[in-house]
Amino acid sequence: MKIEEIQKKLAVFAEEREWDQFHSPKNISMALAVEAGELLELFQWMTESDSMLATSDSKLRGRIEEEIADIQIYLLRLADKLSVDVESAVNRKIESNAQKYPIEKAKGRSTKYTEL
Amino acid sequence: MKIEEIQKKLAVFAEEREWDQFHSPKNISMALAVEAGELLELFQWMTESDSMLATSDSKLRGRIEEEIADIQIYLLRLADKLSVDVESAVNRKIESNAQKYPIEKAKGRSTKYTEL
Amino acid sequence: MKIEEIQKKLAVFAEEREWDQFHSPKNISMALAVEAGELLELFQWMTESDSMLATSDSKLRGRIEEEIADIQIYLLRLADKLSVDVESAVNRKIESNAQKYPIEKAKGRSTKYTEL
Amino acid sequence: MKIEEIQKKLAVFAEEREWDQFHSPKNISMALAVEAGELLELFQWMTESDSMLATSDSKLRGRIEEEIADIQIYLLRLADKLSVDVESAVNRKIESNAQKYPIEKAKGRSTKYTEL
Repeated sequence: MKIEEIQKKLAVFAEEREWDQFHSPKNISMALAVEAGELLELFQWMTESDSMLATSDSKLRGRIEEEIADIQIYLLRLADKLSVDVESAVNRKIESNAQKYPIEKAKGRSTKYTEL
Repeated sequence: MKIEEIQKKLAVFAEEREWDQFHSPKNISMALAVEAGELLELFQWMTESDSMLATSDSKLRGRIEEEIADIQIYLLRLADKLSVDVESAVNRKIESNAQKYPIEKAKGRSTKYTEL
Repeated sequence: MKIEEIQKKLAVFAEEREWDQFHSPKNISMALAVEAGELLELFQWMTESDSMLATSDSKLRGRIEEEIADIQIYLLRLADKLSVDVESAVNRKIESNAQKYPIEKAKGRSTKYTEL
Repeated sequence: MKIEEIQKKLAVFAEEREWDQFHSPKNISMALAVEAGELLELFQWMTESDSMLATSDSKLRGRIEEEIADIQIYLLRLADKLSVDVESAVNRKIESNAQKYPIEKAKGRSTKYTEL
């Protein structure tokens, strides 16, 4: 995914509409949580097994794709506004998770690292 | 960002820890919303102006980067589990937003497209 | 539950700490979503069946009670700030839900009323 | 607010529609977070000052009241399913907050107790 390219597109989109006045990091964090709630809504009454097959229904697939896109869009917008390098933040987090959840301790357990 | 590469890393990470049993799309959508809540927490009492400078404090920058990473990680994991192509979903969404929010109507307004 | 009494306590609590400057409805809606995320965290990796027994573990019971309390507190605080009568809003909503979800149509189905 | 009375109404409502199969605590925690997200949506692009006047617009007031009601309804439903006494949980939490945030330390500051 070409992050800078998408961020540039989103920046132009906002600028053309004079939306930067609304796009404070505070507000974008709210928008992101709103979209996370909309994603949650699609799964709230589903069993876990059904959720694994959710995209086999084409209408539901469309809605899931939209929510995933919305979250990704606000995440990149937020990172842009705050000059955060998403890819390197992700790589650092994966390394730190590997420290927090050593295989032998975490195997088969969903326990939080603070309680492992 | 090399999406497939990150998704592969995350898949191996989960497999080594036998975590796939927990990673139903339903559960991952919950985890994603939890992380969106943690991001929100960092901004909840801040003014919008202060939120624009949030990453100039290095401790706060670290926490914001972690939450952004967590959200990105769960989003890619979910997309992988449901075979959603994030980049193309994002591009389709940007195009659809351009239709829903024509410049002349949306300029300077935060109104939802359904009420424009 | 004596709503006005609790709201009064919360108002005094905030006033003594000069917290009204932080308690805009916008900010309280964020705080409420943060707490909803913390509640979600307790259930995210649990099966539905296990979630039914969650309060039989006394430590977990304590944490669930705290999150329920936090959500209730922010909800009453928000209602107070916006002069919303929670009890009558709840009663109106239950009546409106009865209209939207007639028994014969909604029986055994989790479908949203817009699609019933 | 007569909590038991509302909980009884909600229980009958669910029973008549055979909805108990969907109402695991896990699922209700999701529904609650979804509603918290919908409340958030109403305030996401608003300034804090505008949010203080939100209920002076009658249409917006109606929507805020509905979201507050939805959150309250799911909170009482969850408490009922898990046999949590909301009122006493709230009172305990207010007392514990008074310990965590002594007036002299917390005055005029939005800092979390762990960092006070």
